[in-house]
Amino acid sequence: MSAQTCELCEVTGGELLWQDARCRVIRVADAHYPAFCRVVWRRHVAEMTDLDMTDRAHLMAVVWATERVLRDAMQPDKINLASFGNMVPHVHWHVIPRFSDDRHFPQSVWGTPQRDGLAHAGPASSVLTAALEQILGPATDAVPGR
Amino acid sequence: MSAQTCELCEVTGGELLWQDARCRVIRVADAHYPAFCRVVWRRHVAEMTDLDMTDRAHLMAVVWATERVLRDAMQPDKINLASFGNMVPHVHWHVIPRFSDDRHFPQSVWGTPQRDGLAHAGPASSVLTAALEQILGPATDAVPGR
Repeated sequence: MSAQTCELCEVTGGELLWQDARCRVIRVADAHYPAFCRVVWRRHVAEMTDLDMTDRAHLMAVVWATERVLRDAMQPDKINLASFGNMVPHVHWHVIPRFSDDRHFPQSVWGTPQRDGLAHAGPASSVLTAALEQILGPATDAVPGR
Repeated sequence: MSAQTCELCEVTGGELLWQDARCRVIRVADAHYPAFCRVVWRRHVAEMTDLDMTDRAHLMAVVWATERVLRDAMQPDKINLASFGNMVPHVHWHVIPRFSDDRHFPQSVWGTPQRDGLAHAGPASSVLTAALEQILGPATDAVPGR
């Protein structure tokens, strides 16, 4: 897949919670996991080891901030982190608060459903944004061209 | 689950490729994914944000080294990274070289099998160890008590 046809190059991919010039945090529209977030690197790069050390550290700092904010807001039983990119080979991290009564627990959300499961709503997106800004600084409005 | 009954506190969990005082890299015995590796934090901690910044950076440096070594050795179509801990809430990272003709691609290895799939053998473990040592330095033989 080239950058020209990559959906993460083309669209935000969810509700924008925070962004800077290098990456963005989005909230995914997932009925079973309403607080499922993703951290998406802006530039079209396939693997973490395609990024230099500085960019890698920056991206992970945003992943840790997202984990921290979701833990503080929701006290999940577990946080799940994953970066696959098998379908969209553009670096992005899944950050998912998990609960023992959710649809797949203790399986991954990509596994076999275990029950109908409770969808834990989580706080309003404005609350998550405010908490992210407290850790990461203000979101950038105007983002330089890709 | 307490540290007293945690399997990652009790057993290595695979073939040991590299270790230092803080973490270890193991090769998992997975028939479909013979080069599936895990990076296991030594201390019993559930979440990445339970580690301080220095430990977090160290653990991820070992994850990136494992990704680098697997990429160089196997040229996979994609690397998959994940840290769940739903069943064993002790920080560990899955590092999985993926190929378009493997059992689950483009699904995660926790998803529905797509075909019988080819098991890509990967190099001998001694080769992976040597490559890890080149990036991370010599493995530690004697590990302090947990």
